Amino acid sequence: MPVNLPMPKHADLLAVSGIKLGIASAGIKKENHPDLVLMALAEGTITSAVYTQNTFCAAPVTIAKQHQKEAKPRYLLINSGNANAGTGKAGLEASKSCCKAVAEIANVDANVVLPFSTGVIGQQLPVDKIKHAVPDAFQNLTADNWFNAAHTIMTTDTVAKAVSKQVEIDGHTITVTGMAKGSGMIRPDMATMLAYIATDAAVEQTVLDKILARAVAQSFNRITVDGDTSTNDSCILMATGKAQNSMMVEFESNAAQALYQVVAEIMQQLAHAIIRDGEGATKFVEIKVKQGRDAEECRQVAYTIAHSPLVKTALFASDPNWGRILAAVGRAGIDALDLTKTAIYLDDVCIVEQGEPAQSYSEEKGQKVMDREEITITVELGRGQAEDVVWTCDFSYDYVKINAEYRT
Amino acid sequence: MPVNLPMPKHADLLAVSGIKLGIASAGIKKENHPDLVLMALAEGTITSAVYTQNTFCAAPVTIAKQHQKEAKPRYLLINSGNANAGTGKAGLEASKSCCKAVAEIANVDANVVLPFSTGVIGQQLPVDKIKHAVPDAFQNLTADNWFNAAHTIMTTDTVAKAVSKQVEIDGHTITVTGMAKGSGMIRPDMATMLAYIATDAAVEQTVLDKILARAVAQSFNRITVDGDTSTNDSCILMATGKAQNSMMVEFESNAAQALYQVVAEIMQQLAHAIIRDGEGATKFVEIKVKQGRDAEECRQVAYTIAHSPLVKTALFASDPNWGRILAAVGRAGIDALDLTKTAIYLDDVCIVEQGEPAQSYSEEKGQKVMDREEITITVELGRGQAEDVVWTCDFSYDYVKINAEYRT
Repeated sequence: MPVNLPMPKHADLLAVSGIKLGIASAGIKKENHPDLVLMALAEGTITSAVYTQNTFCAAPVTIAKQHQKEAKPRYLLINSGNANAGTGKAGLEASKSCCKAVAEIANVDANVVLPFSTGVIGQQLPVDKIKHAVPDAFQNLTADNWFNAAHTIMTTDTVAKAVSKQVEIDGHTITVTGMAKGSGMIRPDMATMLAYIATDAAVEQTVLDKILARAVAQSFNRITVDGDTSTNDSCILMATGKAQNSMMVEFESNAAQALYQVVAEIMQQLAHAIIRDGEGATKFVEIKVKQGRDAEECRQVAYTIAHSPLVKTALFASDPNWGRILAAVGRAGIDALDLTKTAIYLDDVCIVEQGEPAQSYSEEKGQKVMDREEITITVELGRGQAEDVVWTCDFSYDYVKINAEYRT
Repeated sequence: MPVNLPMPKHADLLAVSGIKLGIASAGIKKENHPDLVLMALAEGTITSAVYTQNTFCAAPVTIAKQHQKEAKPRYLLINSGNANAGTGKAGLEASKSCCKAVAEIANVDANVVLPFSTGVIGQQLPVDKIKHAVPDAFQNLTADNWFNAAHTIMTTDTVAKAVSKQVEIDGHTITVTGMAKGSGMIRPDMATMLAYIATDAAVEQTVLDKILARAVAQSFNRITVDGDTSTNDSCILMATGKAQNSMMVEFESNAAQALYQVVAEIMQQLAHAIIRDGEGATKFVEIKVKQGRDAEECRQVAYTIAHSPLVKTALFASDPNWGRILAAVGRAGIDALDLTKTAIYLDDVCIVEQGEPAQSYSEEKGQKVMDREEITITVELGRGQAEDVVWTCDFSYDYVKINAEYRT
């Protein structure tokens, strides 16, 4: 079902010096099914993180934020199958217990462990099962485990999402490898999405923070499947410094910019992978809004189109029912929008120009675009220079099926 | 499929003195299928109207607004099968031509005719077909035609929506009869919804305007099926004055308040009928948000829940996956929401209290509520005295089916 999304190959996922990953089966949802990932970060590794904006953030998010303030993270413990969200004080204790289980084996303080959970909301985390599995995860810690880890963090994902890239910076080969999970409850400001990106570059904390913030803005914060944000979203960028390049101290430096480009590419590829594997998705849709007064109003129009169930079901049906796009633009709440300056395109086919149906448009031309698996909808607002882009997918029977039957 | 929505009975729909309705088959979408309604308003009838807020409002809306400014409406011409929206200047001409066809036969100015269209967006209105059918509509004008008219204006509706009530005011029997259509593209600030409510009461224009505004706020502007607003929404309230009651000149008077109550009940019943017949609906869901700082933030939370595809698919599955409700409250964008004061109920079953899973909650209790066809979700924000309510339905396979296959 995913749209042009091949499974990553084990051999393509490069180890990042200083990062090891261990896998275990805790039996959280199913027995003998890998559902626990432990990431061990070499001493000196720095991390930068962004978390969900949802007021009801999950227990692990609360604990991870707190731990990150207190100490330099050395371990990440990720479970799938249970989100530990909406679980109240017991949930906070559960996350802490998991961290403690890791800390005891590693002989470190519990606050150097960051906990992450994804899965069903509102059920207590089976702490004992997780504690019991943690030693297994330690036993198979290895640098060459991204492929398995990417599979272990999946929930409704149908394809694992992971990618590696290398770049030469100042004569050093820098490696960046990332993995992500997520396919429903995806929208801006993070979603039921977990993403872990690691590099061996030597980079200062302030530079790493900027790289993460900029790259997230161009990737995970520009995608939407269904408009629902989750309680658990987290994106962690780690830099081990093992590549021995000279420390990057300025975000504007050539070296840091080169690293930023690679991180941004990886995050965008992972973000697109989430959409391509969107629940029930049959199309990958780019929505570009141009000629706005500012980027914010461009996003507003783009998200109104991207969230319209009518547009999404028309995309599913490959129906060039462009009236639905037009109606979505019209209800996006843009102040004093001048219809006579508005244009809408399906790929390169103009459907509306100067607010009127385009004379050159024909149903055949529209149909030809809608039959494609990858479609770009472009809207020109004719009132400025700003633009922005959002990626989404269509809305199919399978979206309903997946979400109606999720817990059964 | 509709949720507890019986078909109106012909005998229950009372004629309103001063209002006649004629039906015709113009063959807009199908041959020999009634798709045209002409309403004739007796001289002296006053009307009040609200229209879609969509910037891309349809041609008939533009013309109806203009005509209403220029003259006192005497005829309403409503077609189903084609919305005449997104049709540019040609669409405006088409609507004018239809008005002219009515005016010529009635020997009145064209601007006393208000045009309304509902159906597919983006196709030119077949004006000649409509003109050809207008004489037929004149020929069968009768006061006893609400039942047929309510059927004629349907598009994806599966059940006609019409209701009558009578009330004694100052010794006079006042009749109010209304009909509406709409089932998809429904949300606040009007939707692909047409509603026509007529009374024989004698009432001044300013009072009628207030009655309409208040009644719409409590009915059509509090429902949502899919968050999509349409280009064509219109709600018209007519008062013929034929009941011979003494003219209502103050909205606060007992007489006007009695009329307002009846009009509001009819509009709420019609609005609920639209939700009960929501595309693919299997549940009728009331979302009450209480203890907000103001009604606006209550609505914001209510609509976030009502529009969440994850909440709606869980409702369809009768799955008490209340974590999705909680996540929707958390992402509603309420400033400084204090979780420890928040409570959530499914009917009378408390699922969250003081931001924690309720100790009294059990999956069995939640399941019992979710198995019902009519469900109330109540959220308490614990920060004020304001409250508001929104009505919606669930999100099923059939919603996707109906909207994916609409034009095929």
